Amino acid sequence: MSFAARARRLSELANITIFEKGPFVGYANCGIPYALGGIIPKDEALILQTPDSVNARYNVHIRHNTEVVNIDRQKKTVEYRTGEEVKSMEYDKLILAQGAEPFRPPMKGADAPNVFTLQTIPDMTAVKQYMFSHGSKSVAIIGGGFIGLEAAESLVALGMQVSIVEYLPHVFPPVDQDIAEPLHTEIRKNNVSLHLNARIQEIAAPESEGQPSHIVLESGEKVPGDVILLVVGVRPRVKLAEAAGLATNRFGIVTNAQMQSSDPNIYAVGDMACTTNMITHTPQNLALAGPANRQGRLAADHIFGRAVAYRGNVGTSMCKIFDVNVGLVGPSLFSLKTQGIPAEYVTVHPPNHAGYYPGANPLTLKLAFSPADGKILGAQILGKDGVDKRIDVLATCITAGMTVYDLEHLELAYAPPFGSAKDPVNMAGFVASNVLRKDTEIVHAEQLTAETLEEYQVVDVRGPGEYAKGHMKNAKLIPLNELRGRLGEVEKSRKVLVYCFVGYRGYLAYRIFKQAGYEVVNLDGGFKSVSQGAFKALTE
Amino acid sequence: MSFAARARRLSELANITIFEKGPFVGYANCGIPYALGGIIPKDEALILQTPDSVNARYNVHIRHNTEVVNIDRQKKTVEYRTGEEVKSMEYDKLILAQGAEPFRPPMKGADAPNVFTLQTIPDMTAVKQYMFSHGSKSVAIIGGGFIGLEAAESLVALGMQVSIVEYLPHVFPPVDQDIAEPLHTEIRKNNVSLHLNARIQEIAAPESEGQPSHIVLESGEKVPGDVILLVVGVRPRVKLAEAAGLATNRFGIVTNAQMQSSDPNIYAVGDMACTTNMITHTPQNLALAGPANRQGRLAADHIFGRAVAYRGNVGTSMCKIFDVNVGLVGPSLFSLKTQGIPAEYVTVHPPNHAGYYPGANPLTLKLAFSPADGKILGAQILGKDGVDKRIDVLATCITAGMTVYDLEHLELAYAPPFGSAKDPVNMAGFVASNVLRKDTEIVHAEQLTAETLEEYQVVDVRGPGEYAKGHMKNAKLIPLNELRGRLGEVEKSRKVLVYCFVGYRGYLAYRIFKQAGYEVVNLDGGFKSVSQGAFKALTE
Repeated sequence: MSFAARARRLSELANITIFEKGPFVGYANCGIPYALGGIIPKDEALILQTPDSVNARYNVHIRHNTEVVNIDRQKKTVEYRTGEEVKSMEYDKLILAQGAEPFRPPMKGADAPNVFTLQTIPDMTAVKQYMFSHGSKSVAIIGGGFIGLEAAESLVALGMQVSIVEYLPHVFPPVDQDIAEPLHTEIRKNNVSLHLNARIQEIAAPESEGQPSHIVLESGEKVPGDVILLVVGVRPRVKLAEAAGLATNRFGIVTNAQMQSSDPNIYAVGDMACTTNMITHTPQNLALAGPANRQGRLAADHIFGRAVAYRGNVGTSMCKIFDVNVGLVGPSLFSLKTQGIPAEYVTVHPPNHAGYYPGANPLTLKLAFSPADGKILGAQILGKDGVDKRIDVLATCITAGMTVYDLEHLELAYAPPFGSAKDPVNMAGFVASNVLRKDTEIVHAEQLTAETLEEYQVVDVRGPGEYAKGHMKNAKLIPLNELRGRLGEVEKSRKVLVYCFVGYRGYLAYRIFKQAGYEVVNLDGGFKSVSQGAFKALTE
Repeated sequence: MSFAARARRLSELANITIFEKGPFVGYANCGIPYALGGIIPKDEALILQTPDSVNARYNVHIRHNTEVVNIDRQKKTVEYRTGEEVKSMEYDKLILAQGAEPFRPPMKGADAPNVFTLQTIPDMTAVKQYMFSHGSKSVAIIGGGFIGLEAAESLVALGMQVSIVEYLPHVFPPVDQDIAEPLHTEIRKNNVSLHLNARIQEIAAPESEGQPSHIVLESGEKVPGDVILLVVGVRPRVKLAEAAGLATNRFGIVTNAQMQSSDPNIYAVGDMACTTNMITHTPQNLALAGPANRQGRLAADHIFGRAVAYRGNVGTSMCKIFDVNVGLVGPSLFSLKTQGIPAEYVTVHPPNHAGYYPGANPLTLKLAFSPADGKILGAQILGKDGVDKRIDVLATCITAGMTVYDLEHLELAYAPPFGSAKDPVNMAGFVASNVLRKDTEIVHAEQLTAETLEEYQVVDVRGPGEYAKGHMKNAKLIPLNELRGRLGEVEKSRKVLVYCFVGYRGYLAYRIFKQAGYEVVNLDGGFKSVSQGAFKALTE
């Protein structure tokens, strides 16, 4: 649709035809999980355009309920089927915008009538009809990604008993384990039964009349669900392109920066296209609405003679899960490591706005950067309000090629309801710059084990009340404000690991120890990161 | 305080002394308007540090209730007075962080006991004590800037009858008139009596016992107030520096990029310093907490041998006024014009997040850019949620030297609760780029008068229902979807002015007219900008 609208603006003369396999065009598929449970009260709200309204506005011919079944690149024609009838049409330029299809892993029982995917409005309608006609009370969701999480929240709002079954050790796979852990807490707090590291044996039919069907895990556990949602990601829809001999790879249809496939008269845009990650310079498949929209627009620009180039993706994403919001831009640390890209990171937990103004809540911001030059590689943020703001600022920084040193200088909006004089983004920049300038040395909880922790003299510089609620193993309590006077209690011959709750007092203590001649490290993100990240072995 | 904390982190050995004229150090002065009316329920929440806590943590000697009365640059000493006693102390480096003082314009009656400024905690305490002991019912606020607006909201929450008296034609002077107009609506909706273009003759005492005092305007109007707040901005506190012979100008103490004054051993930071605007490269005085904090930190870095340079300000600011938020970065269009800087702008009104997700509200985003190269010069945004996010993104873009073309490519967070596939920032970039690429020509409401409007054939391409609620003078209604078939109704020999509600349908219509050979302009921001901006003469 974004291609068609832009193409028409550039040329009143072009003949533009859209083939759509389903009944709807220009609908808001990102709203489907929310309409499923009534958070968006009316399904019609998702239908932004009709074939007639598109035609009236853009003079674009829509052939809906029509599937393109073949591309003949020599003749420059497409064959399409409406009902039983197959016809063909010539093209000068062909845009492939078929998107991605829900992945259906081979699984015993997945063909049962109560197992659904959730990509299209007809998918959603089918789930709703089944739920309401069968009086369903429980839903088991296979997959803890965007759709699974959004659907879980939505179905809880509907009063369903909801379970999530996730193959990986954490939900929302784009982020790291430590960022996902608080999501697990939030999900469980909302009475969703969460199964991680789950290997599915089968989807089993109800054992008796009136019982739910259930997902049987290899562990033997049974997860009940009157309805089963299969939302384990998508795969680029490349069959038609492959049959036409276009170059593809596991990320989709190979495209150049003008979104042209290996046939320059055929463009591929959106979830089916293989594009380049701006940070890692590697190919990727990105199923996100923003890039898809811009790619469609850009293809139109190119066809009508504009000098344009797609700059690649940074992978900015956000997800709301009940009262917690999580977002990221760039690869996670896990992903950077997997790709062999050198990366350091820091974790900060500043409030979203001035702590003294009502409604302040802590954010957790994990910032990844190149140890060589401080270039920002990615960010993951978790919190209530203000997560998306910092993600967008950091996405902009990454796009601009900024370093962590640049973050120190950013002048971000501050009034008590909105931020702090030192915004969380500035804070992350200060801490990361301190690390690179060697003003502080940090250790991450994930680098420690109960054994390696014993190599350190562990010093907790918080107050006694904080210490009493839980602390690092073998930690000695010396409140920061007493530290200068009590340095004698710490051996100079042994490495010191200092920490506080979020890292700032630990950093002040680090500076005192360091200048007194100690070998010392500060615990990144403080005790909050340890407790939030589920490193129980490190605490007592 | 940010200087002292950073200096201590860099050196455990430095002797650091802070002189503070008042009783408090490290308090949250930005929270004062909110604590005044109890939005921040406890005044103590503003006191983040005490002299003892600062000393314990940073080993910094605090001399509070102590005023520095003289600087002897030859001897490198300061003379300071505690009570009646005057002593002196040597310095190696001296940091001036005296801030700015409330401006008190000469005004008859301004010395009455019920007239207060509102900069410090003692100021606030004095107002509260007066209000509560006198059973005050009404407050008149002179000045419609940050503090005046925040105080108005806060005092309404307290049940006061509030008036605002502003000298200029609009409140929140950093923004343009059209952006401020909806603030006036919001202020009046909350039963605040608002007086614009107000020239004050005097503050008059109560006419009889039990009556409020009142502000007498030159118009003869009387604005009642048991309490009068005088919050008409601040002036850099430069007396001490001037007496010491440091270079100053009307923006404060002249500083270099290391925050050094004309005496390299004396630094000036924060509201009293003259700094450079990053966009206009002109000197300015900026009384904002973020830059002040960073300047203090930077001065410490420089003193302890770091290669640092302050990059200048972009002037990012935000203000909450009841349920409306307004923010800006860079100069307003009015200010750019006054400074003779060539600037074009576009206005868009997209929703803060997907319109189909509950709680969507329109933003108004006015983006200023260089007509020569598209460089972003500033942005003003008005709305409910999501204003600060887009301000921060655009502040980051400006800092990175981005153009409006770069905004087209930004990949910003999208899920229905947070944004749209095409974020408002992208939208502004698309529209501005269209203007620069001559894909559209726009006219601003402020460029039109009832007379010049008659030169155009005015075509409204909205629906009949929208048209019926109000439209441009002499506008002919041709709904967009009928336009291609009804072009014959529009003369080709006369210029066309086309418009819709927010500008998008107008743009589509522009493309149709243009490609059909018409001379045509689209109304920037559509009818919403006209009605919101109070251009009543253009409508009917």
